[in-house]
Amino acid sequence: MSPKITTELLKQLRQVMKNPRYVQEPVQAYIVPSGDAHQSEYIAPCDCRRAFISGFDGSAGTAIVTEQHAAMWTDGRYFLQAAHQMDSNWTLMKMGLKDTPSQEDWLVSVLPEGSKVGVDPFIIPADQWKRMSKALRSAGHDLVPVKENLIDTIWTDCPQRPCKPLITLDLSYTGVSWRDKIVALRSKMAERKVMWFVVTALDEVAWLFNLRGSDVEYNPVFFAYAIIGMNTIRLFIDGDRMMDPGVREHLQLDSTLEPEFKIQVMPYGSILAELQAVGAGLSPKEKVWLSDKASYALTEAIPKAYRYLTPYTPICIAKAVKNAAETEGMRRAHIKDAVALCELFNWLEKEVPKGTVTEIVAADKAEEFRSQQKDFVELSFATISSTGPNGAIIHYKPVPETNRTLSVNEIYLLDSGAQYKDGTTDVTRTMHFGTPSAYEKECFTYVLKGHIAVSAAIFPNGTKGHLLDSFARSALWDCGLDYLHGTGHGVGSFLNVHEGPCGISYKTFADEPLEAGMIVSDEPGYYEDGSFGIRIENVVLVIPAETKYNFKNRGSLTFEPLTLVPIQTKMIDVNLLTDKECNWVNEYHQKCREVVGAELERQGRHEALRWLLRETEPLARAQ
Amino acid sequence: MSPKITTELLKQLRQVMKNPRYVQEPVQAYIVPSGDAHQSEYIAPCDCRRAFISGFDGSAGTAIVTEQHAAMWTDGRYFLQAAHQMDSNWTLMKMGLKDTPSQEDWLVSVLPEGSKVGVDPFIIPADQWKRMSKALRSAGHDLVPVKENLIDTIWTDCPQRPCKPLITLDLSYTGVSWRDKIVALRSKMAERKVMWFVVTALDEVAWLFNLRGSDVEYNPVFFAYAIIGMNTIRLFIDGDRMMDPGVREHLQLDSTLEPEFKIQVMPYGSILAELQAVGAGLSPKEKVWLSDKASYALTEAIPKAYRYLTPYTPICIAKAVKNAAETEGMRRAHIKDAVALCELFNWLEKEVPKGTVTEIVAADKAEEFRSQQKDFVELSFATISSTGPNGAIIHYKPVPETNRTLSVNEIYLLDSGAQYKDGTTDVTRTMHFGTPSAYEKECFTYVLKGHIAVSAAIFPNGTKGHLLDSFARSALWDCGLDYLHGTGHGVGSFLNVHEGPCGISYKTFADEPLEAGMIVSDEPGYYEDGSFGIRIENVVLVIPAETKYNFKNRGSLTFEPLTLVPIQTKMIDVNLLTDKECNWVNEYHQKCREVVGAELERQGRHEALRWLLRETEPLARAQ
Repeated sequence: MSPKITTELLKQLRQVMKNPRYVQEPVQAYIVPSGDAHQSEYIAPCDCRRAFISGFDGSAGTAIVTEQHAAMWTDGRYFLQAAHQMDSNWTLMKMGLKDTPSQEDWLVSVLPEGSKVGVDPFIIPADQWKRMSKALRSAGHDLVPVKENLIDTIWTDCPQRPCKPLITLDLSYTGVSWRDKIVALRSKMAERKVMWFVVTALDEVAWLFNLRGSDVEYNPVFFAYAIIGMNTIRLFIDGDRMMDPGVREHLQLDSTLEPEFKIQVMPYGSILAELQAVGAGLSPKEKVWLSDKASYALTEAIPKAYRYLTPYTPICIAKAVKNAAETEGMRRAHIKDAVALCELFNWLEKEVPKGTVTEIVAADKAEEFRSQQKDFVELSFATISSTGPNGAIIHYKPVPETNRTLSVNEIYLLDSGAQYKDGTTDVTRTMHFGTPSAYEKECFTYVLKGHIAVSAAIFPNGTKGHLLDSFARSALWDCGLDYLHGTGHGVGSFLNVHEGPCGISYKTFADEPLEAGMIVSDEPGYYEDGSFGIRIENVVLVIPAETKYNFKNRGSLTFEPLTLVPIQTKMIDVNLLTDKECNWVNEYHQKCREVVGAELERQGRHEALRWLLRETEPLARAQ
Repeated sequence: MSPKITTELLKQLRQVMKNPRYVQEPVQAYIVPSGDAHQSEYIAPCDCRRAFISGFDGSAGTAIVTEQHAAMWTDGRYFLQAAHQMDSNWTLMKMGLKDTPSQEDWLVSVLPEGSKVGVDPFIIPADQWKRMSKALRSAGHDLVPVKENLIDTIWTDCPQRPCKPLITLDLSYTGVSWRDKIVALRSKMAERKVMWFVVTALDEVAWLFNLRGSDVEYNPVFFAYAIIGMNTIRLFIDGDRMMDPGVREHLQLDSTLEPEFKIQVMPYGSILAELQAVGAGLSPKEKVWLSDKASYALTEAIPKAYRYLTPYTPICIAKAVKNAAETEGMRRAHIKDAVALCELFNWLEKEVPKGTVTEIVAADKAEEFRSQQKDFVELSFATISSTGPNGAIIHYKPVPETNRTLSVNEIYLLDSGAQYKDGTTDVTRTMHFGTPSAYEKECFTYVLKGHIAVSAAIFPNGTKGHLLDSFARSALWDCGLDYLHGTGHGVGSFLNVHEGPCGISYKTFADEPLEAGMIVSDEPGYYEDGSFGIRIENVVLVIPAETKYNFKNRGSLTFEPLTLVPIQTKMIDVNLLTDKECNWVNEYHQKCREVVGAELERQGRHEALRWLLRETEPLARAQ
């Protein structure tokens, strides 16, 4: 991959930063955050402004351009990728390393006195605005909202905002109707004494109305906002999508309904004006509930005294706890996903020695097998298909320039997943199609021990996920190894593959306590720059555990793996496992055999079944 | 222990809350925090205002009195104690439990509209003021500073502020002279571009000047403040302590010094006026560095634009990393402390069966043995000497009303420590002088496994202590058991037994990364209300570890126990230990034998030596 040449673009951006057509006063710095107006992690092409200006297209990063400098902040997953994709105009700021300045500190260090720092108020979350504005102000600078997005002014071939048809989900998928979700939301609103709730995150709109879309690749969401009052529902959405009879029926748009369940459909672009009208009409003590990550523009629409901001919305919290219909759907999706991967790995085992399988071919083949499964919709993220040194690029995505051929001499890492109408999958397996070295097996086994330590962990009800993160690292730490990413993220149910409010990471302390029904990933890894990458990832469901003393009736929790794909035993140094770990692997493989084996049988996939049976032979311990 | 009757006191307090002699306008609520003007954890009798008004004298708690209510917030260590000590006028607010409201939320829920909430601005830390003031303001109330402390106005027999002689420490104890500490501090100030640093914490003043005092029981500190400029040193301290020739020589008060090392001694009470003068004389860009936990009164003395606030001061951070002289001193102190405890436990073993040893007798005996050791100064905290059900009161201190007799039928928990001129100790051992039940042994062994998991943990340089907390709980969690306190705290060097900025707790995320030379406690426990308490505590030193791969030269850390007191093997269910854990116990006991054994021999304490040798026999594993 060769870096994007940005000299001319930066010159243009620096011109518009001083152009009175776009800015009231010249801005000496312009911030280009990663997100869209909904603070989405995955964004539509028209919102990829940071990638457009810098070339770096990883999922997390913030660019800041001043008159002299251009700097990019990103985290450990993307250090290598960003370094490859950006030209020498850019300075990479490695977040999480001790000597890396924060954006605020860096701005203060490079800006001339009394500078203005511009940002699109629709793109920057209110909490970030507040923090940055305060830091800049205390150093004599000003953060200013620039209404017209300055990147858009120089992005001549910017794609259109997508507006694709919607999918309706019935009760067999969602378990709860949108009306009941509104009722539950209003009861949370009543508890907190708020009169209005503004739905700004795309997955929250989708979940609330039991609708899905495809406006953003990998995330089955659609561009929309909603404002829920105690007696009104306003849905802000564009296009003729609301003309679809199925959607109209689903939302009961043409039915005679109690007024409090009547959905008013309004144009997407009218949200700010409508919200300002709501804000202007509030009587004392009428509060409006917003996520503290909602955009600065929307947050400012409500006078400060009337805002009720929380880090997690009631929808975010309700959505995280999957009901029986969703859990069953997730189980089904993971069994189908396992079938596809058994087919893939069986195929790779035969094809890799021929030297014709590249990373892209393997990724495409994975998608092909997945697409054969019932209710398959699309992938849930860009497949990370990486062999040898590419595996060390944590969020690598093969492109023609980097595309490497799989061989019997290198470790292959596949991190992939799909959206099925009944659930979302995300699984990583690390395979060797020849003979792994002792060192590779050693590292793999430590990662496996970490994976098991989390998966088999028992903990009291109410424990926050970040308290489990070190369990995943302990075996690596004992040998002086570590990995620079968190251990797990929440997973949506036919929704975003990354969702809050729970997760397992040393970096997050604001996570909500784990409770039964939540679904997270468990994905420790180890990466050797220039050589290989190892990661073992299952999606796991939080379930009640049985313990001898049950925390004085506080209740015990543990995890049940939903992912049921064999972990390559060839990569395991069995002597490094305890008996308990060895049993875990054998029991896990036994379950893969039973559950996935039955489905392979049912689908008549006999060769893949034989592969599964061979790969799930019990580990033999050296005595 | 019977509760303090507070009806009359609360009546008086509610009167002064409306008395124009003390308040400009009536206050509808008055907050009585735990601390003193230095935000000390341990406070002098004259500062025990919260205990005076409520009866609850634990080390942590905040009282709030309104016209109708009186409520006390404290944490899990003190739930039982607070419930015992307070009468029915008081409501106990159990912090850390899900349904317990924050002080702000509670105030908002009980106060009439537009209320004033009063607090002594010298007692409330600036960060707490800010948080509470904001929350109250957004609910239409006001937090107001009440200059005269309202508790003091009704506390007719309030003791005098202590003003005891000072101890000077020479280089053999401190490793670094106070002049060199000032030089290092000024270099940190220059790095951050601040011109002034205000020393408000008592242990920071003591550490900076290599002085100790005894104004506060258990903490060898003295009432003082300091303001350090780039060219001036002002020490605010009362009494004739500065007349002592040794102190004068130590501080070179009568020597001809470079002006920047000349200490100006000023009255303790003049700090506010002097700081206001500093604040008034600042030129633009001249910042003043304060802890964000400094009192609201002192923080307000500096105009907002000139404040530089950090959670940890450069002194706090420097003080935490012990130098060679301090580390060696801590080792010596712990060996002497172990000698005293070997004597004690040997004595208890003989005396307990006679039925004459009460918790108070045992605590006194522990102090007697400690006081026989060289350089003993005082205890480092109130001895927790607790048997049977009293052991479940986490920070129990025996008093005549609760004093229980040790017996061969109950578990005995002793958490105690001392101040020696060369170091501070803090050790907990849990013993049974008869035959422990299988359940008691089981619980003890889980606690031991947790203790070992932390003590033997290997982790990369720069890891924060809170990431190790779950290691201490894992074995307990597996069986559905837990404990409601953190796992470790920083320990001073002949200074406060609790100090920042590091620790091992699920509750603290603002801790500074661990580095070699830091000293913390490792003290998991298990408590069965009404039955027994178990805790195993060593003080441990952070040291470099040897690992196979050394985190790509980031460096590896682990702990070395400084505490060298046998862990009662009778309480261990050896079958629950792994080989690694078993070896840890045996190696630890071998070191106790060698190091403490040699000292017992040197001191001619032959009977205690025989006890040590017997108690440190290697564990025998069932084959």
